[in-house]
Amino acid sequence: MKIYKIPEATVMRLSVYSRFLHQLIDEGVATVSSGDIAKGVGVSSAQVRKDLAYFGEFGTRGVGYRVDELYGHLMKILGLDQTWNIVLIGAGKLGSALALYQGFAERGFHISTILDVDPARIGTKLGNVEVEPLEVLQDRVKENNIRVGVVTVPASAAQDVTDRLVQAGIKAILNFSPRILKVPNSVILRNVDLSVNLEVLSFNLALNR
Amino acid sequence: MKIYKIPEATVMRLSVYSRFLHQLIDEGVATVSSGDIAKGVGVSSAQVRKDLAYFGEFGTRGVGYRVDELYGHLMKILGLDQTWNIVLIGAGKLGSALALYQGFAERGFHISTILDVDPARIGTKLGNVEVEPLEVLQDRVKENNIRVGVVTVPASAAQDVTDRLVQAGIKAILNFSPRILKVPNSVILRNVDLSVNLEVLSFNLALNR
Repeated sequence: MKIYKIPEATVMRLSVYSRFLHQLIDEGVATVSSGDIAKGVGVSSAQVRKDLAYFGEFGTRGVGYRVDELYGHLMKILGLDQTWNIVLIGAGKLGSALALYQGFAERGFHISTILDVDPARIGTKLGNVEVEPLEVLQDRVKENNIRVGVVTVPASAAQDVTDRLVQAGIKAILNFSPRILKVPNSVILRNVDLSVNLEVLSFNLALNR
Repeated sequence: MKIYKIPEATVMRLSVYSRFLHQLIDEGVATVSSGDIAKGVGVSSAQVRKDLAYFGEFGTRGVGYRVDELYGHLMKILGLDQTWNIVLIGAGKLGSALALYQGFAERGFHISTILDVDPARIGTKLGNVEVEPLEVLQDRVKENNIRVGVVTVPASAAQDVTDRLVQAGIKAILNFSPRILKVPNSVILRNVDLSVNLEVLSFNLALNR
């Protein structure tokens, strides 16, 4: 099944739905309606149905969805029916926090390689993973079949590090540095700016000034 | 001017546009077209025009936008024409990374208060700010006129901490804990799950399996 042009907001909501379904499984709930999902995650039930409709027919009219079945479908759609090895570059404060972030492992993301250029950091451990020099990038990507890279280096080093990731065969990059990066069309780039989240709040607070 | 029902995705793009315009100001660029902005940030020019149209008429047909003027408008819309004092609760790895994150200060977000319950953390400093016990929350919120709280505590403590923030008069909460939190309708809650960003990547990689 090939699917194109799914809005990113839909993908992000699928992720939210899958977490809610996981919670229902833990609670022993067997079936769920789009209305239940909508209420549980705070969107409209029309939105839930529209998001799921991109991927075919899951539910049964009048009965709703089987929780475990829908959960399995969503995890597969999100690519979470497998483990992804990840290389993280930049073992500073943010890099360390991400390396130790429980939420990644829970969703099948395994930071298998952590690299830095700072001799003071190389050889230290973050969880079970030792920080290694940037030079081993190509070897580790091959050995561990890594396709995803996370960039948490200072802005001045971000493009260089990104170029190295691309050259090493990385197919998707999550960039936490505040620099607009260039990658070839064959590589997926996603920028995370943590302050954007605060700006959604300040926007809403400013409306009521 | 009161504005309602602006899609969150639009707000997030306004944030991206404003950063691009800031870059143009640094480069001495005086005017810009919606096409230039679109190309600079990687969306369609129709999208740029639609996003800006929510907030009135900014540009001049055939000339485009005055960069400094549009930047000023966007910063005001985003509530970034002022400084926001912020209380951060939870001085663990992620909390420490956020407390030291340069990107917040650049956009006018000032983490003025950092609280924790762990005696080993209380009294330590993150940047210029000393970690204080949770008990001073109410006092600090009043003294520093804080309206925004950031929650980086373990899931088990997240709802209790959120209740305390609400009680202390906080109006907007950014939650990094992996727990679905309840707040009154008068309080804006935004959940940040860092793994969602990786899932957008794995979704796209999985499409090509």
